[in-house]
Amino acid sequence: MGMGANSYGKDGIRLVTVARLPDRHEVRELTVDVRLEGDFARVYTAGDNSPVLPTDTMRTTVYALAHDHPLGDIERFGATLAERFLTAAPAASLARIRLVEHPWVRVEAGGRGHPHAFSRSSGERWTATVAATRSGLRVGAGLEGLVLLKTTGSGFAGFLKDRYTVLEETDDRLLATEVSATWRYASAEADFPACRRKARRALVEAFADHDSRSLQHTLWAMGQAVLRDCGQVERVSLSLPNRHHFPVDLSPFGQTNDDEVFVAVDRPYGVIEGAVERPAGTGA
Amino acid sequence: MGMGANSYGKDGIRLVTVARLPDRHEVRELTVDVRLEGDFARVYTAGDNSPVLPTDTMRTTVYALAHDHPLGDIERFGATLAERFLTAAPAASLARIRLVEHPWVRVEAGGRGHPHAFSRSSGERWTATVAATRSGLRVGAGLEGLVLLKTTGSGFAGFLKDRYTVLEETDDRLLATEVSATWRYASAEADFPACRRKARRALVEAFADHDSRSLQHTLWAMGQAVLRDCGQVERVSLSLPNRHHFPVDLSPFGQTNDDEVFVAVDRPYGVIEGAVERPAGTGA
Amino acid sequence: MGMGANSYGKDGIRLVTVARLPDRHEVRELTVDVRLEGDFARVYTAGDNSPVLPTDTMRTTVYALAHDHPLGDIERFGATLAERFLTAAPAASLARIRLVEHPWVRVEAGGRGHPHAFSRSSGERWTATVAATRSGLRVGAGLEGLVLLKTTGSGFAGFLKDRYTVLEETDDRLLATEVSATWRYASAEADFPACRRKARRALVEAFADHDSRSLQHTLWAMGQAVLRDCGQVERVSLSLPNRHHFPVDLSPFGQTNDDEVFVAVDRPYGVIEGAVERPAGTGA
Amino acid sequence: MGMGANSYGKDGIRLVTVARLPDRHEVRELTVDVRLEGDFARVYTAGDNSPVLPTDTMRTTVYALAHDHPLGDIERFGATLAERFLTAAPAASLARIRLVEHPWVRVEAGGRGHPHAFSRSSGERWTATVAATRSGLRVGAGLEGLVLLKTTGSGFAGFLKDRYTVLEETDDRLLATEVSATWRYASAEADFPACRRKARRALVEAFADHDSRSLQHTLWAMGQAVLRDCGQVERVSLSLPNRHHFPVDLSPFGQTNDDEVFVAVDRPYGVIEGAVERPAGTGA
Repeated sequence: MGMGANSYGKDGIRLVTVARLPDRHEVRELTVDVRLEGDFARVYTAGDNSPVLPTDTMRTTVYALAHDHPLGDIERFGATLAERFLTAAPAASLARIRLVEHPWVRVEAGGRGHPHAFSRSSGERWTATVAATRSGLRVGAGLEGLVLLKTTGSGFAGFLKDRYTVLEETDDRLLATEVSATWRYASAEADFPACRRKARRALVEAFADHDSRSLQHTLWAMGQAVLRDCGQVERVSLSLPNRHHFPVDLSPFGQTNDDEVFVAVDRPYGVIEGAVERPAGTGA
Repeated sequence: MGMGANSYGKDGIRLVTVARLPDRHEVRELTVDVRLEGDFARVYTAGDNSPVLPTDTMRTTVYALAHDHPLGDIERFGATLAERFLTAAPAASLARIRLVEHPWVRVEAGGRGHPHAFSRSSGERWTATVAATRSGLRVGAGLEGLVLLKTTGSGFAGFLKDRYTVLEETDDRLLATEVSATWRYASAEADFPACRRKARRALVEAFADHDSRSLQHTLWAMGQAVLRDCGQVERVSLSLPNRHHFPVDLSPFGQTNDDEVFVAVDRPYGVIEGAVERPAGTGA
Repeated sequence: MGMGANSYGKDGIRLVTVARLPDRHEVRELTVDVRLEGDFARVYTAGDNSPVLPTDTMRTTVYALAHDHPLGDIERFGATLAERFLTAAPAASLARIRLVEHPWVRVEAGGRGHPHAFSRSSGERWTATVAATRSGLRVGAGLEGLVLLKTTGSGFAGFLKDRYTVLEETDDRLLATEVSATWRYASAEADFPACRRKARRALVEAFADHDSRSLQHTLWAMGQAVLRDCGQVERVSLSLPNRHHFPVDLSPFGQTNDDEVFVAVDRPYGVIEGAVERPAGTGA
Repeated sequence: MGMGANSYGKDGIRLVTVARLPDRHEVRELTVDVRLEGDFARVYTAGDNSPVLPTDTMRTTVYALAHDHPLGDIERFGATLAERFLTAAPAASLARIRLVEHPWVRVEAGGRGHPHAFSRSSGERWTATVAATRSGLRVGAGLEGLVLLKTTGSGFAGFLKDRYTVLEETDDRLLATEVSATWRYASAEADFPACRRKARRALVEAFADHDSRSLQHTLWAMGQAVLRDCGQVERVSLSLPNRHHFPVDLSPFGQTNDDEVFVAVDRPYGVIEGAVERPAGTGA
C-alpha cells in the first residue's frame, strides 16, 4: 500500500483587524484557511513529524503577518501568507490560501458616517484564493451569498420530456438563486478591488436584464458579462442553485393565483454549475 | 394525571408575494408561525379531533389570505390571520402569529432601480407578533440579525472579583453584538413601518454613540432611545449576545499589538437580556 | 423609563472531562449555560459594575469546579454551580444553570470495550436545569434530539373542516417526530440517572406502542408513561414537531404507491407542545 | 468567449421507503443528488433547452424507480439511477449520483425489536457515489459523521519550529476527529454492505488501537486497515478534521490539571486529508 494525494492545514482562522486612523477607524474581518501539499508522505507512513509545520503555527503566522502587513486587498494578503508558508515549510511544494471577507459597513449616525461604529452589511462574502508553488502564484477571487430574484423575464420551455415528466412549460416564472462566483486572474498583479466591484455589478445587472430561457442561459449571460467588464479575468466559474418558488394552487378556495402568491421550497433544488472562459491564447 | 398547558400550530410557513404594478414589481418574503391555545385538552386525553383545526389548514389559510389581503404591514397581516384562526377554531381562546420578514431590495442596474429584479439586502430580519384573544389584540414587533461592532468607546471595569477571576479591567475594548429586539405597542393601531424605521435608527445610533461601561449599560441606552423615539411603544426587550473579540498576544513574536489584531471567538459568549419600559400608568 | 426584567450570563461553555481510572478512562462532554437574575438594575442604568460577576468568571468557575467535583450526575453538578454563583454574586437572587450532555460511548475493539477510545453515540442530548434561589433549588432534566418514526399505528381523522381545508382524513399514516422532553423533579434529591433511563424508555415505548389518533394523542400517552414510571417526576413537558412524510403521487407514471415511497418535507411543520402533570397535592 | 466545464442536476432529493413485510416493516431514508455532464453547451450559449432533462424529472425519476426497484444496497440503487439518466438524456456523457443514507434502527420495546417503530441511530451517514458513462460504471462508498475520541495513545512532537511556533511538544494528548471516508471499488460488483461493515470496524479499531504520533500518522493506520480488511477496495480517502481539546489552565486557581479538564474549541481546526491506495497493477 502507498500514500496517495494528501494535504493538511488549518481551517477557520478568524481574523479581525482595526486600523486606527486619526479621523476614523477601519475594521476588516476575514476567515482564513491554509493548506500545504508536498513531500509529506513519511509523516503519514513513518510518523516522522520533522517536515511538519504545525497547523497551530499557521494560525499564529496569520495573526503575526496581519500585524506586520496591514490588510489591503485580501488577494495580496493571501499571497504574502502563501509565500511565507513556502519559506517556513521546506517540504511544501504548494501552499493554498483561501480567504473569506465578511464585509462591515460604517454606521450612519446623525446623517454622516460614524468614526468607529460598523454594521454587518449583508450575508454576502468576498473570497480570494492564492495557490503558490516554488515557481509562481495563481490568484483567484470571488463572492458568495449574493442572493438574487427576478419576478419576470424568465421562462423554461422546450425541454426534453419522458415518461417521468410532470413539469409544465412556462414562459414566465419567478427565478431566484444564490450566486457563488470565482474568477481566475491572468496574472498575480491586477487591480483586485476594482475588478471585484466590476464583476459584482456585471453579475447583478446581467441577472436582472437577461431574458432568460433557463438558469443555464442566465449563467452564460452572467459569465460573459464578467469577462466583458474585467479584462484581467481569464475565466469565471459560477454555481447557481435554483431557489425554487412555486405558485400556490388557490383554486380549491375559488381564488385565481396570477403569479402573486408563491411558496419557497428549500429542497430539493436544482444546481447549475459552469465556467465561461476566454478562448485559449487570447489576451485580456 | 392531567393535561397542563398546551398549544399547537404550524411553524415555517414560507410565503413570497409579488405585486405586479404597472411600472414595477414589489416582492415580499415572510415566514409565518401559527399557534393556538384553548379548550383542546380532550384532543390529547381522548383522541377527540373534533376541535382541531389541522395545522395543514393553517398553512393553506396563510396563502389564501395573502391572496385576498395584499401584504401591507406585517403587523396588520398578522392581525388578519389571528382573527381568522379564532373564527375558524371555536375552541381556541388565543391565536398567536409570529411573522418574520426577510427584506429584499431593488437591484440597481444602469444607475436606477430595476423594475423586477431584487437582491437580499442583509441577514437582518423584521419580526412581528400578534396575540389575539376573544377580547382583543396585542401587537409587537422587532428585528433580528442586526450585527453591530464598535472599535472604541467601550470599557469594562470595576466589576466583582473572586478567586476565579482572571479577566482584566479595560477602559477600551472592541464591542460587538447581534441585536435581537422586540417592542410592544400600547395599542393595536400604530404607524408600524414608521416606528420600525425609528426604532432601528435609535438602536444603531445609541449603540454607536454611547460611552459604554458594559454591554448592560449599552442595552439601557439602546432601550431608552427606542422609547424616546417611538411614542407608541410601551416596552422594548433586547437580547444582546456579546460577540467576543480578543486582542491576539503577539509578544512571543516580538510584536506589540495595540488593539489592531483580534481573534473573534464563537463560544462561549456572554448574553445580556433586559427590558426597558415606561413607568406604569404613563401614556405614550 | 425604568429597567424591567433582566438577566445575564454565559452561554456555550464547553467542558470535556476525563477520569483516568486504573483500568479504563471515562469521558464526559457538557455544554453549560449560566444566567443570573437579581438586583442588577444599576448596572444598566448607572453603568455601575460593582455587583457584576463577569461572565468570564462564570466560565472559569465551571472549569475550576469541574476539577474539584468530578462529574457525576449533571443535575448535581448543576446544583454545585448554581450554589457557587449565588455565593459569588451577592446581588443575585436566582442562578439558573442549563447543562447539555453530549453522550460518548465506549468503542468496541476486538470484541470488547476499549479502555480509552470512544465514539459519539448519537445526536441525542441529555439536559438538566437547576434554578437556585436563596431559599432552595428546583431541578429539572430532559432529553433532546430523540428522533422517532413509526410506519403504522397512527391516523388523523375527525378534525374540523372549513373552506381552506384540503387535507384528507387518514386512518394510517407514517408518523415521525424529534422529541424534546423536560421533566421537573418534586425534590432536589432523586435518583437522576435511573429516572433518565426510565423516562427515555417510557417515551420510546409509548410512542411505539400507542394507537395514535393525532400527535397530540401520542404526546399524552408519552407524558403519562413518564409519570407512571418515574415517581419522582411531578410534571413532564413535551415539544413534538411533526416531521411530515407524504406519500409521493406516482399515478402519473402508472404506479400505485401503497404507502411505500415517501417524501420527507422540512418546512412548514406542525408543532405540538404540552405538559402532563400529577394532580395538585398528589405525592409521587 | 466559450463555455467551459459545466454540469447540472438536482440536489437534496429526500426519499423515505417503507417495506411492509408480513411480520415487520423496514424503513430506509436517503438523500439523493443527481448531476449530468455532456454535450450541453448550447443550453447555455443559445438558450436551446432541447437536450435538457429537467431537474424536476430527476426528482420524479428517483421516486418512480424507488417504487419499481425496492431499495437494497444504495450502491446498486445509484447504479440503476445513473443508467436511467444516461438513457433518458442522450446528450449526457456522464451521470453522477450521490446517495446519503441516514440510518434508522428498530426500537426496543418490552425487550424485543418493535415491528414498526424506529429511532435515528446516530448522526452517522453512509454514502455512495456512482459515476456512469456510456462505457461503464465506477462505484464508491463511504461514511460521514463518525465522531471518535481517544483520551491517550496520541502524541505530537518532533515537528518543525520557526519564529511563530508557540505550540509545545506533547507525548500524550486527547485526540478527536469526525471521520469522513470514501472508498473506491475495483469493480462495480462487490459485496457492498459487508465491505461497509468491515471498513467501519477497521476505521474505528485502527483509530482506537494506533499509537499515534500525529493525526496524519493515524490517517495512514486507518487507511491501511480498510485496504487490509476490504479486498474489493482499491483506494480509500480520508478527511480528518482535528477537533481540538485543550487542557484548561487551572494554575491561577491553585489547581493542577492532570489532563482531566478540557475545553473543546470549534475554530480554527486542523484538517488532514489523504488517500491510501494499493500499488498500481496490484489486484485485491
